[in-house]
Amino acid sequence: MESKKVYLDNNATTMLDPQAKELMESYFCQKYGNPNSLHSFGTETHIAIREAFNHLYEGINAHDEDDIIITSCATESNNWVLKGVYFDTLRFGEKNHIITTQVEHPAIRSTCQFLESLGVEVTYLPIGENGTLDASAVENAITDKTALVSVMWANNETGIIFPIQEIGAICKKKGVLFHTDAVQAIGKIPVDVQKAQVDFLSFSGHKFHAPKGIGGLYIRKDIKLTPLFHGGEHMGGKRSGTLNVPYIVALGEAMRQASLHLDFERNNVRHLRDRLEDALLEIPDVFVIGERALRVPNTILVSIRGVEGEAMLWDLNKYGIACSTGSACASEDLEANPVMSAIGADKELAHTAIRISLSRFNTKEEIDYAMEVFKKSIARLRSISSSY
Amino acid sequence: MESKKVYLDNNATTMLDPQAKELMESYFCQKYGNPNSLHSFGTETHIAIREAFNHLYEGINAHDEDDIIITSCATESNNWVLKGVYFDTLRFGEKNHIITTQVEHPAIRSTCQFLESLGVEVTYLPIGENGTLDASAVENAITDKTALVSVMWANNETGIIFPIQEIGAICKKKGVLFHTDAVQAIGKIPVDVQKAQVDFLSFSGHKFHAPKGIGGLYIRKDIKLTPLFHGGEHMGGKRSGTLNVPYIVALGEAMRQASLHLDFERNNVRHLRDRLEDALLEIPDVFVIGERALRVPNTILVSIRGVEGEAMLWDLNKYGIACSTGSACASEDLEANPVMSAIGADKELAHTAIRISLSRFNTKEEIDYAMEVFKKSIARLRSISSSY
Ligand SMILES: Cc1ncc(COP(=O)(O)O)c(C=O)c1O
Ligand SMILES: Cc1ncc(COP(=O)(O)O)c(C=O)c1O
Repeated sequence: MESKKVYLDNNATTMLDPQAKELMESYFCQKYGNPNSLHSFGTETHIAIREAFNHLYEGINAHDEDDIIITSCATESNNWVLKGVYFDTLRFGEKNHIITTQVEHPAIRSTCQFLESLGVEVTYLPIGENGTLDASAVENAITDKTALVSVMWANNETGIIFPIQEIGAICKKKGVLFHTDAVQAIGKIPVDVQKAQVDFLSFSGHKFHAPKGIGGLYIRKDIKLTPLFHGGEHMGGKRSGTLNVPYIVALGEAMRQASLHLDFERNNVRHLRDRLEDALLEIPDVFVIGERALRVPNTILVSIRGVEGEAMLWDLNKYGIACSTGSACASEDLEANPVMSAIGADKELAHTAIRISLSRFNTKEEIDYAMEVFKKSIARLRSISSSY
Repeated sequence: MESKKVYLDNNATTMLDPQAKELMESYFCQKYGNPNSLHSFGTETHIAIREAFNHLYEGINAHDEDDIIITSCATESNNWVLKGVYFDTLRFGEKNHIITTQVEHPAIRSTCQFLESLGVEVTYLPIGENGTLDASAVENAITDKTALVSVMWANNETGIIFPIQEIGAICKKKGVLFHTDAVQAIGKIPVDVQKAQVDFLSFSGHKFHAPKGIGGLYIRKDIKLTPLFHGGEHMGGKRSGTLNVPYIVALGEAMRQASLHLDFERNNVRHLRDRLEDALLEIPDVFVIGERALRVPNTILVSIRGVEGEAMLWDLNKYGIACSTGSACASEDLEANPVMSAIGADKELAHTAIRISLSRFNTKEEIDYAMEVFKKSIARLRSISSSY
């Protein structure tokens, strides 16, 4: 078996789309002006920036009067929403309550914990055994003290899609602001801010083949949000800092490509994912978290009884295959997969989780190679396992 | 006179250094893993990241135990310091005072105004007629309520260098935290965080030929600062968000080049700047703000009586020359140059300011061409001026 390099960790980060790279190239050493400058070095960037914004607006069906503010990552967007609502509303105490889930990304979870230290009440809703969230749980948690609901669109570990449209309708009815971290949804399933009735939506470029270090925050028309970055007049005073022109251009193109490839994602990527998943499920004592119909098309969170996740990862890596035991942000500490724990898996099982996440750049050959490696590694690791 | 393109707006932003571009290239579509991942796509980025950090540490003479945290820009770094100190100290009221100057970048000024709305007291020190700040003014302003002094290393409009080392010694003596926005100093003059005894130092890549959208914050050993971005474990939990690997690599290389070229800056760039400045000063009723000895080597803030800054800018632009009437962040509104106003220039004069800022990529031919264009444009605009 010849060794290859197969990247199956696209929920951690993705390859930059070569077309996006191509488009941004000339903004580094040729058209390098500051877009806020009045001279031609500045103004010659304007058309490309405008086009990029058009792609972003179209990609999530934002209205012209809504804002999409460029940020440096979804972590910034998430911090901004929570801390912005803190400064706008929560700190005065009349409304002092946020509702979120137990399985949000650390950028939400840690920020909520920080706000708790400032006196904010936070409800962390549990998810069910099937890995999903019941919209009625959100409805039941809302009180007249609730200022904000923040629920992710799709989970980074399991790929499970949350009932964003229902939650949006509930928040609208109750007059509560609604934020969604859509980092793992963009490029995988249709994301429509109007249908979902969200007020705020975070996204991160590098999860859909734009570069790492750029993201955005959608803000519905007329909603004020205290800036996280105070400063000059960039982005209408909402988010200061000199614009990262090349990455904005790449982000727009990546969003355009993501939208264009949604059918490909739903059909071809899903097909490859299912092929690999079916092969894994043929192996005894292998479980996949979450019904397929409830998941984005690219993700498998698999639990292999008797095989410690870390060990599996090293074996896969030896054969050039990149997967993850959990979100990359948490992978430096060797804790049990937090989503596995949240859905009530026992500790041993939670330590066997392996996340496989595909992209439209994966090929059938790569998946077939991965199938072989998985089978061999599982057999080998089980043969030396003390618990299997 | 043949038209050229001459970029003389390097205090607004710079061209990416071609060598930095070269070095970062492979991290977009080949070595695109998340550095936090355990597999080879992640780990193959580690050496380049470590090297980049080494260049950053060397570039400002940071100690190994100090932190340099990568941010998305100096605006982020500046907001982080001020808001971090707010959450650590100021909000409890025992110390509730910040000292800064009237000529800081909006990223400091607006953030201070925001903190004032939260009850913080801010002293905005005026600068003298010569455009500089007297360190004793800082000393006199410090009370036992003072938590932080924030003074820029060099001014973005005038290029005037502030007495950072003296202020550092004063803050040390008085036990007050000291932050400097060194955005306009890095790459132009030596910056040594030990000599200057600063606790925090902000920098922005795109002012020294790294890309736009990356910067950093130096934090002296053992100083705690509440994060601006809460989240996972990136940067030791101090600044979350997936690492922007290509830009980190480019930032390190740009810092290395900046350090290597400090002599070139002090000699060659200064020589070209002085050549242009001398030519301008030969024209009657032309004034330059600040003594040369007090300025970074690349900057001229010039006032041309009878010639409105905006009009001058358009004329220069017609001939392919890029300058500025003020910081790019403020250039969308047509107000008088704020530094000119701060040093007591009358309103009419403040509207005539033109900032010329060179880089090591400018040539003698470009400067000679610019001299010609300036002379012609000044003559033409004065001939149609109502006030001259
Ligand atoms: C659901 C979710 N939210 C937020 C983030 C943070 O994205 P970034 O690291 O680009 O800030 C991630 C990425 O790990 C994610 O999966
Ligand atoms: C002195 C100073 N500080 C901060 C900044 C902000 O830099 P950035 O736009 O990269 O955040 C600038 C750039 O305009 C500056 O000149």
